[in-house]
Parts: sequence; C-alpha cells; structure tokens
Amino acid sequence: TARQNVGAKGRVFAPYSVYKGKAALSVDPVLPTFAKLDSGDLRVQRKGVIMLTFWPSIGERKYDWARRQHFGLSPTEVGSLISMGPKESSEFFHDPSMLSSNAGQVRKSLSIKALADGNGYFVSLNVVNNLLKTTERFVVPVTTAEFTVMKTACSFALPHLMGWDRLTNPLPVASNKSS
Amino acid sequence: TARQNVGAKGRVFAPYSVYKGKAALSVDPVLPTFAKLDSGDLRVQRKGVIMLTFWPSIGERKYDWARRQHFGLSPTEVGSLISMGPKESSEFFHDPSMLSSNAGQVRKSLSIKALADGNGYFVSLNVVNNLLKTTERFVVPVTTAEFTVMKTACSFALPHLMGWDRLTNPLPVASNKSS
Amino acid sequence: TARQNVGAKGRVFAPYSVYKGKAALSVDPVLPTFAKLDSGDLRVQRKGVIMLTFWPSIGERKYDWARRQHFGLSPTEVGSLISMGPKESSEFFHDPSMLSSNAGQVRKSLSIKALADGNGYFVSLNVVNNLLKTTERFVVPVTTAEFTVMKTACSFALPHLMGWDRLTNPLPVASNKSS
Amino acid sequence: TARQNVGAKGRVFAPYSVYKGKAALSVDPVLPTFAKLDSGDLRVQRKGVIMLTFWPSIGERKYDWARRQHFGLSPTEVGSLISMGPKESSEFFHDPSMLSSNAGQVRKSLSIKALADGNGYFVSLNVVNNLLKTTERFVVPVTTAEFTVMKTACSFALPHLMGWDRLTNPLPVASNKSS
Repeated sequence: TARQNVGAKGRVFAPYSVYKGKAALSVDPVLPTFAKLDSGDLRVQRKGVIMLTFWPSIGERKYDWARRQHFGLSPTEVGSLISMGPKESSEFFHDPSMLSSNAGQVRKSLSIKALADGNGYFVSLNVVNNLLKTTERFVVPVTTAEFTVMKTACSFALPHLMGWDRLTNPLPVASNKSS
Repeated sequence: TARQNVGAKGRVFAPYSVYKGKAALSVDPVLPTFAKLDSGDLRVQRKGVIMLTFWPSIGERKYDWARRQHFGLSPTEVGSLISMGPKESSEFFHDPSMLSSNAGQVRKSLSIKALADGNGYFVSLNVVNNLLKTTERFVVPVTTAEFTVMKTACSFALPHLMGWDRLTNPLPVASNKSS
Repeated sequence: TARQNVGAKGRVFAPYSVYKGKAALSVDPVLPTFAKLDSGDLRVQRKGVIMLTFWPSIGERKYDWARRQHFGLSPTEVGSLISMGPKESSEFFHDPSMLSSNAGQVRKSLSIKALADGNGYFVSLNVVNNLLKTTERFVVPVTTAEFTVMKTACSFALPHLMGWDRLTNPLPVASNKSS
Repeated sequence: TARQNVGAKGRVFAPYSVYKGKAALSVDPVLPTFAKLDSGDLRVQRKGVIMLTFWPSIGERKYDWARRQHFGLSPTEVGSLISMGPKESSEFFHDPSMLSSNAGQVRKSLSIKALADGNGYFVSLNVVNNLLKTTERFVVPVTTAEFTVMKTACSFALPHLMGWDRLTNPLPVASNKSS
C-alpha cells in the first residue's frame, strides 16, 4: 500500500490566520491519506485534521514562528467546534506521545471559551512538557466574524477530512469515456 | 442501459465509525447508479443511500464484524435525520424483503432518541428475523459532536445521493474545448 | 455568442419526486447558460432555475404525466424557500407570457403553506389559463423530512444556478499545466 | 513566483444583482491568487474578496454603470455578513489608499441595517473623497429572500476565497494515474 495525497504534486498552503496582541492563530486543513487495497480499492488510512497553530507575539506586529505549537482537531473535534453556540465553551485534551513510552509527558489542552457578551471567544492552548520542564500558554481572542469564518471553513473541510469528497459522482463526460 | 459508478474504477472506503461499549456504528455513503437513455442522456436509476452498519462488541476494544447488520437511509430519511433538533427523536422501519414472497419476515427498526439532557442520542437498531427465529439489538450512544459530524457529512452527501452533483457547470477550460 | 451547458454532452435527469394522494411533485435543477464574450470571457446569459413539476393522480399509484404543469423558481425565489421557518408560508406568482402579447392570459401561483402543527407544508400550484378557459390546481402535502431534502438540495444547487460554481480554483495539477 | 487564476483562461462573470429604486447592487466573488514557492508548493498570495458594486439609478429601469463604486469584503467581513441575524446590523470601513501617501483621503463605509420588521435590510455605501471633494451615497433595500441568496452564495464562496477548495482530494482515477 502507498500513501497518496495532493502533496505529492505540490502542496497548497492556505491558512486562515488572525493576529492578536499576545499571539497569532492559524487554521489549516490537512487532508487524509489513502491506502490502496489489493482489490484496487482505496481506504482512508489516516483521517485528516484541522491543524491549529499558535505562535507568540514578540513586539508590535512581530510574531515568533519558531516558537509555534500545534493542535490538530480530529473530525469529531471539528464536529464539536462547529456545533458550538454563541454562549458555549469546549475543551480538548491531547497527548502527542499517546501509546508511546513518553505517554503522559506532554499534555496539550485547547480551550474555546465564549465571551460573556456572546460576541466571540477566547481560544487558548496550554502545553505542559514534563520532559523539557516547560509550560507554554497562548491566548487569542477571536471575534464572532472570525469564528464564523472558522466554522464555515471547517464545515466545508469536514467531509474532505473524512475522505467523503472522493465519493463525488463522475461527470457525464467521464462516464461516457468509461463505458 | 448500463450501471455506472465510481466503483467501476475502484471504490473508496471512507466510513465514519464510532466504537462504544456494546457496539460500533459506521456511517458510509453509497452513490446512486445511473442508466444511459437511448437519447444519450443519463437518468438516476437507483438513488444512493447513507449506509449505517452496526456490529457488536465481544470484549475490550474487540468487535465482531461478521455479525454486522445494515440499515440504508434513503434521501428522505437523511432529510429527517439532518433536521432533527437536540431534543427530538426519530424512528424508521425497513422490510428488506418488501415486495418479495418473504415480505414481513424480516423487520428492521432504527431509533434515534435524544438524551434527556440534550447532549447526544441513543442510536439503536432492532432486527427481528422470523425466518431465522432471531432478534438482534444494537445500541450506540452518540455524542453531540459525533452527531454533528454525521449531520454535516450527510448534508454534504445528500445532493450526491440524489445525483445532483452531476449538475455542476463545466469549468471554462472544458467549455472552450467543447465549443 | 453561443449557449453552452452540460446538456450538450447528454443531460442528467435526477429529479427528487414525492408521490401523494392527489398529485406528484418533482424538484429538479436547471443549469444556467453562458455566453462567450468577444474578450474570451464568459458571462451568465440566463440564470438557472429550480423546476417544480406537478402532475395529477389518476388512480392508485397512477399519475398522468401528460397533464404536468411547471413552475421554475428563480435564484431569489429559491432564497425565499430555503429561508422559510417551520411556521412560515410563501406565495409566488408567475406569468409565463410576461412581456408578450399574451401577458396576463395565463397566471400561475405557487403556495407553500406551513401545516398548523409545524410538521410539514402544503405545496400547491394554481394555473389559470384564460386562453384555454381552464383552471388547474395541484396540492401536495410535503413532510418536514421531504422539505428538508428540498431545502438542502436547493441550497446546494443555488450557487450552481447563479454560475458561481464556475469560480472554483483550478487544482494544483491544472495550475502546473497552465504555467 | 507567478500569479495564477482562472482569469488566465477567460474569466467568468456571474454577478448576483438587485435593481431597486435609487440604485443597483451586485455581488460577485473574486478568487484569490497563488504564488508558486521554490519548493513547487503553492501559497495563497492575495485572498479573494466578495466584491460589492453599487451604481445609481438615473431614470425608470435605467442605471449609470459609469458611476459605480466598489467595496470588497474580506473573508472575515464575509464571516460577519453570513452570521448576521434578522435583527442585526453591521458596519464596515475601508480606506482604499491605506498605507499610501493618500491614506485617509478616501473613506468608504458600508452599512447593513436590519429593517424594523426583520423582513430585510438596508444596504448602503458611503464614499467620501477628499481629493475630489465628493460624497456619494447609495442605498439599496434588500429583501430577506435576496439576503438569503447573498448569504448562501457567500457561504459557498468563502472557502474558495480562502483557497481551501484547492484542498480537495484527487478522485480515484487521478490517483491511479499518479501511482
């Protein structure tokens, strides 16, 4: 079996980024990979994610990309995000070393907390690294307009993360050729 | 007339699965088939469905795929599912032998029942088979996040099940070639 | 300028139909046509419509297609339909001979009326033809599930009716070829 | 790096226009441009916008296109528009000469104001040009149905403006070729 994705031909970088006082946040879809079965059929091998990237501000309009931290939302976590009402909050926990010998050494938590007035959210990422003895925290206030962009774009992306966009019916022209 | 679908070239398996204590549930779209008319036009021959598959747990993290049962949601049943509010419930009945001599011998019922707190649903399938003298029952609790994934993915898939995605306008490049 | 649409290669028939006691109703998108400008650019020439077709019942499970009547919803009328709440009603009026010498001779009115319990709609078409001295009336009760399919499919189709699906960015592969 | 868009092959004009008593308003998506990186990957260079164009009425069913004014909504401003409830209002401010020596000389403000009865909006554009000593104002009443078309079409277009539609998984046929 072989992994296949668009990246094989040249990836497309199209992050949606917001730059705020203390940190920046970008939202970027990562496509699933597919494995080819002996039958010639394809199966989703690794589901796609919505990758959130946080990096800190280090001065006016300056941000330090080298200190970025990632949090990849699974399809079900995306379902949680896009179903959030204006007064609701969510929290997600990831252990990037889960199932390895370092399990539990790095703990990431993402919190999306509605503002009291319902006009946006605080999106924050906490990374506690017991191996490096570090704790990092990013907080990015997100307006309703920005969160709507994220929800709309993530809803659009969700079937793609799941591999369901592969199910598109071929166009008539293609059908004629294949018959 | 000839049936045509993507499967002719190699199917794509991209189920959305949730594994719970007593059973697992996967959700998977099945595309429609088209018939070519004498005029050269195409007509939807058999509408697509959202195939639900249930299979039982037989131990910790072990599930018995051989004992799976299917329930295929028609476009209208998908419409019912995606319009469900957080407090609503639905029930669907299928007779897989309808219109045959075995009509009424196997009865399948799918129930989607909102949890009292509005934070998810119990999805259960009941299969009563009078020929085999068996009754099987699967119950899968589904969270709001998981149900949102199912609703979003089914909303995306619905026009595809109906064959409406074939109606996409050709891109300019294609138009130039055809003129 | 030349009209171009998928039909040139073979149309795709994918109506969504509901068969009820007194009449049947089908919903079917009709794509826009494009004109090629001298500059080589394309412009939408005639917007697409959602074509509603009604035809009467003439016995058990028998319907008379020869007596069908059409009502084509413009993009703005589709906007009206998809924004209807469960308790709302809408009415649309068309004169198929508008701006011709027969203007006013045939009057079509489409009514979508919420059921008192909010569980569906009565969709009815009235055609008064003063030339033929005929009046025809079709009434089709539509469940919430069926109306959800219509709304979801019409929302999907709307950008296609407007020609906005032509605006899709070319995939990387295509870009490479064009550079 | 080179800019690439569909326009290279022939643009597609598909504006959604409403003609009212004092002015007309059209809504039209403008795709992003991409830059090719040295790695062969692509990056969004300039995000797409939803271009609003206003032009005044100069008599019955006559409008003066030469006096049109534009207002291009960014993805985040589109997020603001599509999240507006039936009783909400929004205002946006643009300085087309921002960061140039003429900064502040031309000020554009777009206002979307809900009607008191919740059945539509007043959409108005104000352009104050200190260089030309002119002030222009356009007001276009938009019905709920028309605003629903704009919201649905802008929601559809939003991932395209961001470049996320480039992330579509290749179809199985394409995969076979690439393996």
